Amino acid sequence: MIKQSIKLTVDAVVFGYESDSKISVLLVKRRIAPYKGEWAIPGGFVKTSESLEEAVQRELKEETGVSISYLEQLYTFGESDRDPRERVVSVAYYGLIKPQDFDLNASTDAEEAEWFDIDELPELAFDHKRIIEVAINRLKGKVTYEPIGFELLDKEFPFSDLENLYVTLLGRPIDRRNFRKKMLSFGLLDELDKKSSTGRGRPANLFRFNSERYFSLKKEGFVFEI
Amino acid sequence: MIKQSIKLTVDAVVFGYESDSKISVLLVKRRIAPYKGEWAIPGGFVKTSESLEEAVQRELKEETGVSISYLEQLYTFGESDRDPRERVVSVAYYGLIKPQDFDLNASTDAEEAEWFDIDELPELAFDHKRIIEVAINRLKGKVTYEPIGFELLDKEFPFSDLENLYVTLLGRPIDRRNFRKKMLSFGLLDELDKKSSTGRGRPANLFRFNSERYFSLKKEGFVFEI
Repeated sequence: MIKQSIKLTVDAVVFGYESDSKISVLLVKRRIAPYKGEWAIPGGFVKTSESLEEAVQRELKEETGVSISYLEQLYTFGESDRDPRERVVSVAYYGLIKPQDFDLNASTDAEEAEWFDIDELPELAFDHKRIIEVAINRLKGKVTYEPIGFELLDKEFPFSDLENLYVTLLGRPIDRRNFRKKMLSFGLLDELDKKSSTGRGRPANLFRFNSERYFSLKKEGFVFEI
Repeated sequence: MIKQSIKLTVDAVVFGYESDSKISVLLVKRRIAPYKGEWAIPGGFVKTSESLEEAVQRELKEETGVSISYLEQLYTFGESDRDPRERVVSVAYYGLIKPQDFDLNASTDAEEAEWFDIDELPELAFDHKRIIEVAINRLKGKVTYEPIGFELLDKEFPFSDLENLYVTLLGRPIDRRNFRKKMLSFGLLDELDKKSSTGRGRPANLFRFNSERYFSLKKEGFVFEI
């Protein structure tokens, strides 16, 4: 077979969302060269025997302590000069979690692991700034045609929590009445006979995400236009 | 650096669309093992010095004679057993062209190059059937949130040509009145003071795609929900 000097890595852009707050991204401080001491997204070389998904989950766990089972493939970055050592092509993945559900624990190639507000990122190693930008755009694009983020809400939530999540993800105000109408029209939210008790304003009915209906609609090729 | 026995390839899913007809995909008959004599999507090994985009355009040109400047990255396929030789990870790209604009000319690793209706595909090498399925889903998904396909229409076209393109791409009927209303609401179509002369039915006004407005809306982050 052809002689090829290309190495393959995986990288993980893990976004965090906490109610009513901004979106953050999980970074690690590199313990090794190149870019030693600089911040980067977690990632590393794929082992010959593991799948790309196994590799990205392993690297994320090793470098940050965060163990999540679902990361979606984002894009493969292959510019010839993106690594100063040799040609390295990286398959990037992204995911969205609630930071408070995970303890950070840097190890192996990472000296520290920390959440950074996406509007206040430090200098980043390699082309990782660009990778994060691509991931942010994908996330914003995705919420407009796919109901995502339900895993970030409590199991039972007032509708306003969902609205806030979307406003934060989209980074712009939404027409609340239209949003509610559209969201409810999918039939993905079961309205419960229970009120919220946050104490702010009038108690509102709680909702629950109907994941069974979601997967059956997906299978039929239904397109969710938010 | 880490020892890794992984090779990197690129593959191209090139869709063809001709007015009022079905969607086809460009395949090559393999001249070499493995899967010698079987049909596959065009593609091959990335050279260490070339970008992924250069590699996929070169392979497509070599194996089919088709030279196109824009292919969009689809997905990276990395299952450990997808190639019988050794671990091969493939970055797949896809594009959409008018078959009549290109002469096919198989060469290098390809014995033949031919268009196949996507509903009548032959047995395919490797995991290429799955790659094509992923590409078809992406194409169908994409038209619902992005106006694509204008490059497939004549420069000036009756609105019905655009409708037919969408019906074909989506593989289902559309509500013609709503579709027209939405499409025109984006302001992406300039209605010309000219009539079509296809001879079928009443002459209808011709339209032209306003690509300048399209790119300026894209830059502002406008989402086109069809």
